[in-house]
Order: sequence, then structure tokens, then C-alpha cells
Amino acid sequence: MDQQKIDVLLSIKVWDPKPWVEGLSQSTYINQVHLWPTEADLSRVSGLFVWKPLDEGVVQKLPNLKWVSSLGAGVDHLVNDQQIPSDIPVTRIVDPFLTRDMTNYCIMGVLMHQRSMQAHWQNQQKAIWNRLSYSSLKVGVLGLGELGGHCASTLAQLGFEVLGYSRTPKQLPGVQCFNGGELNQFLAPLDVLINLLPVTPHTVDILNLDLFEQIKEGAFLINVARGNHLVENDLLLALDSGRLSGALLDVFREEPLPSGHPFWKHPKIRITPHVASVTAPQSAMQLVLENTKRLIEGRDLLHKVNREAGY
Amino acid sequence: MDQQKIDVLLSIKVWDPKPWVEGLSQSTYINQVHLWPTEADLSRVSGLFVWKPLDEGVVQKLPNLKWVSSLGAGVDHLVNDQQIPSDIPVTRIVDPFLTRDMTNYCIMGVLMHQRSMQAHWQNQQKAIWNRLSYSSLKVGVLGLGELGGHCASTLAQLGFEVLGYSRTPKQLPGVQCFNGGELNQFLAPLDVLINLLPVTPHTVDILNLDLFEQIKEGAFLINVARGNHLVENDLLLALDSGRLSGALLDVFREEPLPSGHPFWKHPKIRITPHVASVTAPQSAMQLVLENTKRLIEGRDLLHKVNREAGY
Repeated sequence: MDQQKIDVLLSIKVWDPKPWVEGLSQSTYINQVHLWPTEADLSRVSGLFVWKPLDEGVVQKLPNLKWVSSLGAGVDHLVNDQQIPSDIPVTRIVDPFLTRDMTNYCIMGVLMHQRSMQAHWQNQQKAIWNRLSYSSLKVGVLGLGELGGHCASTLAQLGFEVLGYSRTPKQLPGVQCFNGGELNQFLAPLDVLINLLPVTPHTVDILNLDLFEQIKEGAFLINVARGNHLVENDLLLALDSGRLSGALLDVFREEPLPSGHPFWKHPKIRITPHVASVTAPQSAMQLVLENTKRLIEGRDLLHKVNREAGY
Repeated sequence: MDQQKIDVLLSIKVWDPKPWVEGLSQSTYINQVHLWPTEADLSRVSGLFVWKPLDEGVVQKLPNLKWVSSLGAGVDHLVNDQQIPSDIPVTRIVDPFLTRDMTNYCIMGVLMHQRSMQAHWQNQQKAIWNRLSYSSLKVGVLGLGELGGHCASTLAQLGFEVLGYSRTPKQLPGVQCFNGGELNQFLAPLDVLINLLPVTPHTVDILNLDLFEQIKEGAFLINVARGNHLVENDLLLALDSGRLSGALLDVFREEPLPSGHPFWKHPKIRITPHVASVTAPQSAMQLVLENTKRLIEGRDLLHKVNREAGY
């Protein structure tokens, strides 16, 4: 029995494309793996797998395109890309390992803040024994999708008092959930705010001075979603006024963060270079191949994006 | 109906005794709270509450003594104290908040190691964007009592591969458990070793070069139990040879750690000043009062120590 197969085009930036090319080439569902840029004939390509951004003019070389997949959890690089026709389904990666890693990074950030790890390290450099006390914290998670929901529930299991906010109503065990017009009630009592929102026109610039002024004085910010959620100058103002006590940032408007950027040297900002959660090719590949099989069999694709909502 | 009441003696060092004196004085089970040192008549005292160490000669002033309670999870300061008669029950604190805080500290230590947080902080100081990769870790927990068991189970829930070792056989969900003569099998595959053993004559000095040489090369050590579990010079040797890649230490043979101690400046050692988990008076007090009630009613005390086993 002849297995039906499709051609796919990979467009990968930042990451090493090699494990993807090798892994996908071994699939019984895939006839040929093309890697962008290429001069090859792409007229048989029906699947386009992208991380990110997608170059202009790629889609017009794909007359047989049936499906676009992001190779990460984020799809902001695809939902607003005008070259992808509106009737072509766009999917994303929902990878349990990626979710787990993101949650664990956030847990680490909350605990390092709670336990004053930076102060302990500074004391160590001066051989100072100072038993700084710690207290229980109210942690708020902004965005309760795959990532935010998992993060909020897990923090609650670890004994934190957790609040969550989402556009539409959600229910999560152990998490006090807010939605819609309740943003201010959600923000007011927080000691730590974790941003795990998707990027949409409604959420760009949402971490701004107006929002910071609604949180409890001295709160700590963790941004692991996208750099363009944060108005960078507003963060500096909020830190300098003491409105916020500090921030752990993994994502930035420009990446790599430019070497002269004021965030690097700011004493209240901790930086990691977009490593909170990294798609593992072997894990994400399983999902891409499951959707490849579903495309061939004419079944619904998993983790389709609502392009109007933007996530 | 007259409520029966007892007199108690508090002997507290390091901590502020004030919340204990005030809290216990309000109890309907307690007639009088004495604070050591005192010249008062202690002949009616039946409960002695200690954190730590207990001065010589205190017990001989307590002819009516019926019960000694440690005010923390550790009892090494009491089990070998010859002034406490062997027929007097010794109890310890098993405080869910203390357990939770200890587990969370260990989670933080494992994650900071996995995510190379120290390297990221050093890179930040030089404005270097270096997306260091991370990989999954095998974490071993030495000691599977109240603290070790909770820590091991919780790390397993967060997605770590967890191994555990205890003197006697244990079973814990998601944890590969070893006991007795299986210490080497437990140690061999570990990326991280967390020590949560009680201090007994069998466990003093257990973290020594012989043990380090049984762990996978480049493993990371977290010691949150007691300073005298660790042979300090052996740790320095293991770090300098690369046998161990680093250590997070919260406890030390001498506390405060002396200012000239080589641990302070060692680039592979991170120090916190015995703050991994701190007994919260309001929480531990509930347990002490529950046992006070049980003593008055002639019922079995909770969390009695096996003084021969030492925990």
C-alpha cells in the first residue's frame, strides 16, 4: 500500500535547522523537505513550517500550500502576515516540555525574588552573613492560556497564593481568576506579576506605567512572553520611582538586546537571553508530524490558531 | 470546669524569643511561660521547648520535666544531650510550611543550576547575550523523611527525573527509591545531589570525597540539612578537581560562617546564610500547643523522636 506523502518547506531563523531537516526527512509522511532559501521548484509544497520571521514573497512560491505551522508556541510572527491567505490554517506548537520549562523558569524567578537571592550573592562577595527574612507572596499570572494556566496552577501547588487574569473567563484549581474589566482588582494586591499573554494588537504595550501604577507598591515583574508587551522606558520609570522593586526579563523588543541598552546595567533588572523555554526539536517534531498525518488523512489539525483573536 | 495548665520553659538562641513568649502566654493550656536564663523557681515546669543548643544544667532545675520539644525540624541538638533522661519524650516540629519552604528552596537551587543563572548574571554584567542551552537533569535526594520525601515528590511533579535514597525502604510516587546497600547505584547517575538527611552518628561527615567520587562527574551539590554532614575540605578538593561542578550551601559546620572561610570566595560555591527554611513561630506554635494539650490529657505526643535512631 502506497503511503501518501507531502512536500514541506522549512523556514528557520535563529535556530540550527539541521535537526529539523534530518528529523522530518525520516518521516514516512514526508516526500521532500525543502529548506528556505532555495531555488528548487516548490510547487508541490503543501506544508510550511516557520520560525521566524517569514521572508516576504515565500508564500507566493507555494501555489499548493494547505497549512502553515509555527515551530514554537508563539504565532505573532504569522497571524499578521498578509502573505498567508486567510483560508490557510495556521497551527502552533503546544509542547508539554515547552510548557513545563516555561513554568519552571517562572517558579525559579518567583523563588529567587522571594528568597532575595541577588542580595545573598552580593553579601557573599563581601563575606557578610545576613539572614534576610522572607514572607509569603501573592503571585499574579497575566494570561491563562496553555502556558499561563499551567504556570498559575503549578505555583498554587507549591503553596503560593495565585491570582490569574484572562480576557475571557477561566477556572483553574487553586487560582483566583479574574477576567474582562477586572484587571485592576487582579493587579492591586500583587507582590509578583508574571506576563504570559499572547501578543495581539490588544496586548502590545500592555506592561506600561498605567498598569504598573495599579499594582501594589514594590511589586516584582517577570516578563517571559514577548518584548513588545513591555514599554521599556515605562519600566525604567517604575523601577526608578520604587513603584516596582525589580524585574526579571527574558524577552526584549530587540533581540539580541543591544549592548548599549540601559537594561543591561540596571541594578534592579535581571536579564536572561530568551531562554525561559526553548522548543526541543525532537518534542515539537512529534506534534508537527501528527498534524502532517492529519493533513494527509483530511482530519482537523491540532492547535489551530484563531487568526482574528491572534492566538 | 477548671482547665488543667502546665508551666513551660523556653530556651531560645539565635531567634527572637518574643513571639514565642507572647504566643504561648495566651494559651489556655499554659499557666506560666519561663524564658531561660531565669532565676525563677522552675520546679513546676513540665514542658521544655528548645532552640538551640540547650545550656548545661538546665534540665537539673526541672524536677517535674515530662516532655522536651525542639522548636525546629532538627533534633540533633537534643538526642545526644546527656542531661535529658532517656525516659523523657523528645518531639520535633513537623510543620507543613517549613516542609514547603525547604522544598521550594531546593527547587530553586536545582533550577538555578539547570538554567545556568550564575553564568547569565555574569554575562549580564558584561552585556553579553549568550543563549546557553539547558538539558534535563537527574536529581537525587539523600534522605526521604518528612523533608526529603516531600522534596523528591515535588521535583518529580515538576518533570525532573528523581531518585531517592533512605536507610530503610520507602515508596514515593514518581521517585526511584533506593535504600540500605544501594547508595552507589543511587549516586552513580546523578546530575544534582540534594542532602536532606537527619544528623546521626551514621550521617555525620557523609558528604565526603569517597561519596563525591561515586557521583557522575560534574554533578552539583545542594546541602540544606546540617553543616556537619559535609567534610568541608573534601568539597574543596572535589570542586577543584572538577569532580563536582558546584555547590549551593545553606548550612555550615560553624555558623555564622567565619569571614575568612574559603567557601565565601570560591567561584563554584553559592552561599545562603541558613535560610532555606525557617520555622514560622505562628505555625510551629500550633503544633507545640497541640502536644501541650495531649500531654495534659495523657495522650500520645505527635512527632516523637526515636532517640536511638537519632531522628
